[in-house]
Amino acid sequence: MDYKQVAINKAKSLINSIPSEWLLDNIPSPEEQPNVNEYLDSILPENEKLITSSNANDLLHLQEIGKLTAYEITYAFCHRAALVHQLTNCCSEIFFDKAFNKAKELDDYRIKNNNKLIGKLHGIPISLKDQINLPQITTSIGYIAPHISKEFEKIITNRDENQNDISLIAEILQNNGAIFYVKTTVPMAMLGGETSSNLGTTLNSIDRNNACGGSSGGEGALIAGKGSIIGIGTDIGGSIRIPSAVQGLFGLRGSSNRFPYLNIANSYPNQIGVCSVVGPMCSNINDLIHVSKVILNDPLCIQDPRCIPIKWRDDEEEVNDKVTNIGFLRWDGEILPHPPILNNIDKVYNILNGNDDFNCQIIDENKLPVKLSQLGKLLLSFYNCDNFTEISNYCKLSGEPLSELFKRSFKFKEDNRMDNVEEFFNKVKLKYEYQLKFDKLFNELNIDCFIMPSYSTVCWNQGDNSKISNFYTRSINVLDYTAMTFPVGKVNENDVSFHRDDGEFINEMDENNWKYFNLAKQLGKPVTLQLICKRYKEEECCRIVKKIIELL
Amino acid sequence: MDYKQVAINKAKSLINSIPSEWLLDNIPSPEEQPNVNEYLDSILPENEKLITSSNANDLLHLQEIGKLTAYEITYAFCHRAALVHQLTNCCSEIFFDKAFNKAKELDDYRIKNNNKLIGKLHGIPISLKDQINLPQITTSIGYIAPHISKEFEKIITNRDENQNDISLIAEILQNNGAIFYVKTTVPMAMLGGETSSNLGTTLNSIDRNNACGGSSGGEGALIAGKGSIIGIGTDIGGSIRIPSAVQGLFGLRGSSNRFPYLNIANSYPNQIGVCSVVGPMCSNINDLIHVSKVILNDPLCIQDPRCIPIKWRDDEEEVNDKVTNIGFLRWDGEILPHPPILNNIDKVYNILNGNDDFNCQIIDENKLPVKLSQLGKLLLSFYNCDNFTEISNYCKLSGEPLSELFKRSFKFKEDNRMDNVEEFFNKVKLKYEYQLKFDKLFNELNIDCFIMPSYSTVCWNQGDNSKISNFYTRSINVLDYTAMTFPVGKVNENDVSFHRDDGEFINEMDENNWKYFNLAKQLGKPVTLQLICKRYKEEECCRIVKKIIELL
Repeated sequence: MDYKQVAINKAKSLINSIPSEWLLDNIPSPEEQPNVNEYLDSILPENEKLITSSNANDLLHLQEIGKLTAYEITYAFCHRAALVHQLTNCCSEIFFDKAFNKAKELDDYRIKNNNKLIGKLHGIPISLKDQINLPQITTSIGYIAPHISKEFEKIITNRDENQNDISLIAEILQNNGAIFYVKTTVPMAMLGGETSSNLGTTLNSIDRNNACGGSSGGEGALIAGKGSIIGIGTDIGGSIRIPSAVQGLFGLRGSSNRFPYLNIANSYPNQIGVCSVVGPMCSNINDLIHVSKVILNDPLCIQDPRCIPIKWRDDEEEVNDKVTNIGFLRWDGEILPHPPILNNIDKVYNILNGNDDFNCQIIDENKLPVKLSQLGKLLLSFYNCDNFTEISNYCKLSGEPLSELFKRSFKFKEDNRMDNVEEFFNKVKLKYEYQLKFDKLFNELNIDCFIMPSYSTVCWNQGDNSKISNFYTRSINVLDYTAMTFPVGKVNENDVSFHRDDGEFINEMDENNWKYFNLAKQLGKPVTLQLICKRYKEEECCRIVKKIIELL
Repeated sequence: MDYKQVAINKAKSLINSIPSEWLLDNIPSPEEQPNVNEYLDSILPENEKLITSSNANDLLHLQEIGKLTAYEITYAFCHRAALVHQLTNCCSEIFFDKAFNKAKELDDYRIKNNNKLIGKLHGIPISLKDQINLPQITTSIGYIAPHISKEFEKIITNRDENQNDISLIAEILQNNGAIFYVKTTVPMAMLGGETSSNLGTTLNSIDRNNACGGSSGGEGALIAGKGSIIGIGTDIGGSIRIPSAVQGLFGLRGSSNRFPYLNIANSYPNQIGVCSVVGPMCSNINDLIHVSKVILNDPLCIQDPRCIPIKWRDDEEEVNDKVTNIGFLRWDGEILPHPPILNNIDKVYNILNGNDDFNCQIIDENKLPVKLSQLGKLLLSFYNCDNFTEISNYCKLSGEPLSELFKRSFKFKEDNRMDNVEEFFNKVKLKYEYQLKFDKLFNELNIDCFIMPSYSTVCWNQGDNSKISNFYTRSINVLDYTAMTFPVGKVNENDVSFHRDDGEFINEMDENNWKYFNLAKQLGKPVTLQLICKRYKEEECCRIVKKIIELL
């Protein structure tokens, strides 16, 4: 079968898996209705909107006091997810029936046990990036081939041939009472700052004309559209943070192997020079902290031989009397972010600078020991160290071509061959040297953490990713620092552009990015920044972001 | 200059760095005087012997109450080390003057501060494997070239060109008051289960006719000869444990990057598939625990971007009311260890089996999910993944040939070329799969740890390493488990061989190894076993070994 037909069939089967009463008769165009929430809030019943606007803590509490059932919660999220999917194409798999059955089981359990909950995520729907394996659910990581046969799926994902396996992180969530109902879209091989593949394109829920970011783009669109409050994404160059940034979410990229990655499908799962990490994406910081704790405190984590055995450290989360030394890196000296981003960094600086709990300083971009673009280039050289042989081979299984996004974003190696181990080890060495240099900067500045842009723009039109740049996220993966995106405001009419002479542009990317800014198009869009902490400082990162959010 | 002449000059300069009054007029041959301690105990003064037989705790206490000076301690250890070196060739660098100066500084500090010690290793001499960098001291890691020029040293060790750098672990030890006085020998590139290179051969201090093990062989010989009580070695295939095993020492191989490796010279420092680890080798378990705590609790550890930020966990060391579920793996089903080893495993089993704190079980060797030899072969394939190009290139700098030990122990790849990244990643994958399988075994057997042989023999003649086998140590590096060698007894006259029909041998290695056993030659030699715990269980490993030692 032609790969295009496979994609068409897959899209149809997804729609068919939605109860017919939830199907929209007319799907408004992005021009007619750019914002998913405006549209859905106008058509959904109040009780469902109340549920999908709640946080996990409230939903748990309402169950505990018998005011809400897991089924009601699941129903509301499935319904909204079905609608968000129709508007954005954010789901790669939909399995509401399983979710309803699970919800009923949980309700039965609770009722039989005097409203006792089964675990700390009892009845909380959690959405999963397509890389996460669930029994009897396909994992395709952006390729066509797994939708043709389980044999192809096994080749690409290395999962059990009968699809009986489950990713360790999903097992942990499930054991704690989480309900799975959808998996979400990714670009081919999870490589890309947008989410499109030969299977289709996912739209941004805040503005459906825009890209939803990637590679955890389906997660971002679903959570931003309130079809989920807690999602699990992965990040090797910004894949959690980019979709979070362009859709105003909290996204945590922990250091390598802090969260268990066992049995998660991945591109280059054994490229251990710079590792993909798994982590939470949430619409609020408390849910993010809650789910992180549940995962990291679970004794199952050590089942992953690669997972670092550090449980959640309450003492690092709860330090309340400590002054946080925080730096502000307005830009990297190469790509000046758009005015709303600069203005919001200044806004946060001013608020924190007036608070006794913070000791603020501006970081001179000229003090960066290595250009972020150089870190980004090293990362890219890890991506293509096999000259994308794996990806090319997986495309051949179905006959699909490399996706347009992939071709726009990545280049094959100039010498068109794989690295040998000596070349690979030299990259590993370079990474280590860069880490040492940035650690030294932390020490010299005497900072605990710093705030910087998540991206050089707050959003972009679908397909325009190559007109802007992405070193603000990629650099952090090379350094393996803990990073979290967090929303700090919205673009407003004061975020006007300012003139920069042609001679002032640092390079072509800087010029392209700057000229891409269009206030009218960005008005009202969320502005999201990154907080960067040292390695394995997930608790500290959570604590500081929470504090900042409280102050904003 | 011919490489042989460089080696001769280096050996002479080492002897010249020993105070002339400490030079032996006649060095007895190994046949005349096999045992270093028997000889030295007959010629050294009582007060010095008392010091070199003490443990760190006693030496610290005696300083604190003003009964002993750091200078006296240092004098005794330098003196004995100088003699052990003359008998075994265990030192690669000797710098007693620096040690004496440091000792005087520490004494001054103590006296001025009312006997307060500067740190938890105040005045304790610590010997360092040659890989550890110290300012103005050459690091040659078994090659000739660094003794020709600092440029060559920089190429091989990646250290500062002015030799101003110090390995992080040495800095930590020094900050705590440790005194450095010698660095110790290694085989070329630290690859080998004996310690010889074109620079010379190191003898075993228990029996100078025997190999001292490797690659931390100089450390092993020095500590066994009581020229040191605490040494720092490294281990990627048994390099801490083999010299410890054949010389009756405690040697801890922690999991990857638990102890900080920053600025330690290494072969293939960026081969991160199976990492070399650094760790302590000691003549007693309390010193090993003490120095491990000092290192892991030091805030400097996080200066190493690769170091896992887990401080020493007292709660895991001090669990006293817990029953330890312990397995006993008498052999791996392929190479039957010699009778003294089997008998000592049985002895330990019987002692622990009668103790309420232990729940003992014999592990059926047929239950091993992967043969240890297979794990060992995977490790070897990591070693030579660049087809030993780095090693060949470093030899070329001086014109030295590959060492005889190297040629005896390792083979170039059959296809005589480097791995590409795809091949390397496949090895990383295989390692992960093996780890999962062994973790599963731990769970199925419900064991916290297990005891197994350290090696298939308790000792062997210099140069005979290829007649025996080494999968008992190598396999653990692939699994990345925590492992410690610990002495449990000595070979005695009951350790007689027993007949095995020719048809009973599992393979040629098994037969060769078995036939190598010679009770007369092994009588009185220490028997050392390994305790294997799961990853990052260093505290638990220390606790259990200590408990076993108390019971023996």
